[in-house]
Amino acid sequence: MIREISVPTHKHTEFINIGRQVQNAVKEIGVKDGICLVYTPHTTAAITINEDADPDVTRDIMMELEKAFPWNDIDYRHNEGNSAAHIKSSLVGASVMVIMENGKLIQGTWQTIYFCEFDGPRNRKVYVKIVGK
Amino acid sequence: MIREISVPTHKHTEFINIGRQVQNAVKEIGVKDGICLVYTPHTTAAITINEDADPDVTRDIMMELEKAFPWNDIDYRHNEGNSAAHIKSSLVGASVMVIMENGKLIQGTWQTIYFCEFDGPRNRKVYVKIVGK
Amino acid sequence: MIREISVPTHKHTEFINIGRQVQNAVKEIGVKDGICLVYTPHTTAAITINEDADPDVTRDIMMELEKAFPWNDIDYRHNEGNSAAHIKSSLVGASVMVIMENGKLIQGTWQTIYFCEFDGPRNRKVYVKIVGK
Repeated sequence: MIREISVPTHKHTEFINIGRQVQNAVKEIGVKDGICLVYTPHTTAAITINEDADPDVTRDIMMELEKAFPWNDIDYRHNEGNSAAHIKSSLVGASVMVIMENGKLIQGTWQTIYFCEFDGPRNRKVYVKIVGK
Repeated sequence: MIREISVPTHKHTEFINIGRQVQNAVKEIGVKDGICLVYTPHTTAAITINEDADPDVTRDIMMELEKAFPWNDIDYRHNEGNSAAHIKSSLVGASVMVIMENGKLIQGTWQTIYFCEFDGPRNRKVYVKIVGK
Repeated sequence: MIREISVPTHKHTEFINIGRQVQNAVKEIGVKDGICLVYTPHTTAAITINEDADPDVTRDIMMELEKAFPWNDIDYRHNEGNSAAHIKSSLVGASVMVIMENGKLIQGTWQTIYFCEFDGPRNRKVYVKIVGK
């Protein structure tokens, strides 16, 4: 069984905390013990795990990624003009894996799961799949 | 059961679309529902998911990675001279995971799986493994 | 079953080879065939796969990551001052997956698993979980 989460994004670049939605999907799937894959089917977005507490953490990640892989670069050739979003997508990655035990995601105190929008705003999707028992 | 895919590379830096080969390996393994791991056993290569349509997307990814992590840097100490390839390998990652349903990989419309060569040309390998049922 | 590995780190930035500890955890879990998830619950650290042979490889990776995502940047806002560690954590990633067969991790000749400390020294943890049979 696959659960699909809808993630509407509202800015060009945005990290959206989807930890609660993933936990709800996990409950609906009903598998108690195993590994949970959180996967986005988009090539200008990504999924990551990082700090939940201070919003400046994800703000600084976005800023520094923009410095290293700028939106504007005279050498880009891709005619949609969003090469930087594709680059960030491959570096951050299309998915994360989290261990499940007793029906709960096992994460660190400060960890949550983020959907990373790199070319929004758009209506995005995330798939949740569990293997285990 | 593990399926091995051979990937001969022909350039120093090259993204090779292996989506069809992975799908064929998945058919041979015969598991219908679960999670598929696509893994490369090399430390100067990687696996990623990105756009299939315009070849300039992967061209721009390679170019921008080279700008951020240049092949030549007077501060490198590794005596084989390929530190940049090792760096890109760790950032892009040695594997991707894809959800499987009814014997098919569930990917986005524009997504495919790429083998990323960062120190070629070489004869490379990719392993495909499924957990599920 | 989850196995926990303790990883004391001794420097601010440090890659620690945990390949042997992961293999020992795999033996204790006792699952012979499947996929092994190696996951760190911290947001200023990461897990990666890279070369085992020459210590200058990981030294060069750390150096080049510091050049691309410097510890000091006047534009950072996160008040703990460790934004660079959070950035590297998301780029390298909180986990790796490795295929298991006959009770052994299937890795390339030069590959091992590293715990990546980006804001040490600290006492860190790594979780090992296997799905399969």
